[in-house]
Amino acid sequence: MRYEEFKEYRQRINDKILKEGSLNTKRFFALDSNVYKNGKLPAKVKELLGLVASIVLRCNDCILYHIDKCIEHGYTNEELYEALDVALIVGGSITIPHIRYAYEMIDEIRRIKVSEK
Amino acid sequence: MRYEEFKEYRQRINDKILKEGSLNTKRFFALDSNVYKNGKLPAKVKELLGLVASIVLRCNDCILYHIDKCIEHGYTNEELYEALDVALIVGGSITIPHIRYAYEMIDEIRRIKVSEK
Amino acid sequence: MRYEEFKEYRQRINDKILKEGSLNTKRFFALDSNVYKNGKLPAKVKELLGLVASIVLRCNDCILYHIDKCIEHGYTNEELYEALDVALIVGGSITIPHIRYAYEMIDEIRRIKVSEK
Amino acid sequence: MRYEEFKEYRQRINDKILKEGSLNTKRFFALDSNVYKNGKLPAKVKELLGLVASIVLRCNDCILYHIDKCIEHGYTNEELYEALDVALIVGGSITIPHIRYAYEMIDEIRRIKVSEK
Amino acid sequence: MRYEEFKEYRQRINDKILKEGSLNTKRFFALDSNVYKNGKLPAKVKELLGLVASIVLRCNDCILYHIDKCIEHGYTNEELYEALDVALIVGGSITIPHIRYAYEMIDEIRRIKVSEK
Amino acid sequence: MRYEEFKEYRQRINDKILKEGSLNTKRFFALDSNVYKNGKLPAKVKELLGLVASIVLRCNDCILYHIDKCIEHGYTNEELYEALDVALIVGGSITIPHIRYAYEMIDEIRRIKVSEK
Repeated sequence: MRYEEFKEYRQRINDKILKEGSLNTKRFFALDSNVYKNGKLPAKVKELLGLVASIVLRCNDCILYHIDKCIEHGYTNEELYEALDVALIVGGSITIPHIRYAYEMIDEIRRIKVSEK
Repeated sequence: MRYEEFKEYRQRINDKILKEGSLNTKRFFALDSNVYKNGKLPAKVKELLGLVASIVLRCNDCILYHIDKCIEHGYTNEELYEALDVALIVGGSITIPHIRYAYEMIDEIRRIKVSEK
Repeated sequence: MRYEEFKEYRQRINDKILKEGSLNTKRFFALDSNVYKNGKLPAKVKELLGLVASIVLRCNDCILYHIDKCIEHGYTNEELYEALDVALIVGGSITIPHIRYAYEMIDEIRRIKVSEK
Repeated sequence: MRYEEFKEYRQRINDKILKEGSLNTKRFFALDSNVYKNGKLPAKVKELLGLVASIVLRCNDCILYHIDKCIEHGYTNEELYEALDVALIVGGSITIPHIRYAYEMIDEIRRIKVSEK
Repeated sequence: MRYEEFKEYRQRINDKILKEGSLNTKRFFALDSNVYKNGKLPAKVKELLGLVASIVLRCNDCILYHIDKCIEHGYTNEELYEALDVALIVGGSITIPHIRYAYEMIDEIRRIKVSEK
Repeated sequence: MRYEEFKEYRQRINDKILKEGSLNTKRFFALDSNVYKNGKLPAKVKELLGLVASIVLRCNDCILYHIDKCIEHGYTNEELYEALDVALIVGGSITIPHIRYAYEMIDEIRRIKVSEK
């Protein structure tokens, strides 16, 4: 999925889940937000952890979500590429399609964010 | 495996692999060391990325290896626990046995390192 | 993939596999049908097992297939959502894109089944 | 791990995690208990979902935990074996070592529970 | 993705990665080519290993890439189908969507290669 | 597990499974044997496929089983090491503990087979 399509889709279905799902569903989603907040580790580092976890587990939607957050936190491309290197060596060549997706989305998100200014 | 048994075992079999394996095997092992070195991202952050990747992929030997390195880089328990929280939420309850192992090994490694001083 | 596209595609390629594949391929497909039949456990429970397995292993086509069967077996949305909660806690936030897909498809399948009546 | 060793170990390290971990860690553990409680789906069915998820994700400690709960809920061996069949067909022969472990533990847990009476 | 779209996309993004990525990224990509070359095992066997690994790890882009190479190495459909049988039994029914994709792509690649002659 | 302990354990529990399990369980086990037999692809190649699949899916018992069979089929260490290289690059550094186990077991199995002559 492309960035803007993903953002709209994600928001729309998450709203549905939070409306229809059980109390436990809502709690899981709340907890999922909380663990990325500033604590003993800065939120900026946690987002990079989330990105690398998403690549080795090979989930494109999760990769897109965390790249977006990482770019908001100010990571440069060179920093992101090194994080991708860690994911690539740990996860192996099976992650390469997701590395390709990550490179693509880094560019796409930066283009959109520049044009929005 | 316990920490000291693991260190001896890992060293012994890695030596064997690097002696008997192909040139490509050796290159992989060299590359695996290189990606964790200081670059645009500090080595300290990269080790935490390696730890979280190891937990979500559920590999105890890899967890032990990266916890050892993370402790050498100076992370406190509270910082490590927050990284474990990210791994736990991303990877789910199926990672809990590895979270338990991580908590155990954090203590064991600190005890051994203190007694070595 | 959407429900109706999936059903046509699945049927067409399965037919091809069963025509061209080996005897072992055919046996696997037959066995795959058999394990979900009524036995000591009712087929209805087995389909829910198949659904949760499909979510934690993160396979959208498998999720769609089992949701369809679960709806035929008469599960309500609230029951399905609780099964999704189990999958979500076991498999973690990496399953969320598949939870979203499941919520979407539950609605889509019900809409189509109502309109077919 | 054997059943009684596991129960002691699990309790001891979980206590440590709940004492030392962050608020988010505690919340995750609480949520992990909640999703298996009676709701729209009976707890008995949810434990079987947890068991099958644990097998396809190939986690022995999780398998042992859920078998114990399933036996408490009154499942017969024949019912459990059929749930294992679903896990085996979905997850493939790579799950066989965990199917073996499950068969072993079903016997071990029943023996211990009988002798405790 | 379809075969020709994939080939163009893969080439374009790989070029970008090799231009922008780190030295370690380039080394990984070089190593990834090297391991499939003739050595003690023929390249033809190694590609089949790559194909089966890609199916059990459930990566369509990787499956497409290795099917293309396997066809260049001269495997017949019947040989490929037996390799798929190994992947299917090891990986289970969760690989079936990828088995379907493999059957589709075997046909598509042969059609394109015939029409190119 | 070590080789001889594994062989005894595997035989004993498989016997139990085949005795107590359902008809579907037995069929799965029979099919699992059949797919590795000589067909369009030689059994020798299929065992190597099984080995690589077992490494990328990271299952030590499965690795041990297939190494044993591969050695019976006459593979040299150098050939096995190249197959391990394919598994290592596809599956990444997370497979290294299993690569270590494979190197160990190759030696152990050869030692035992020599001493049995």
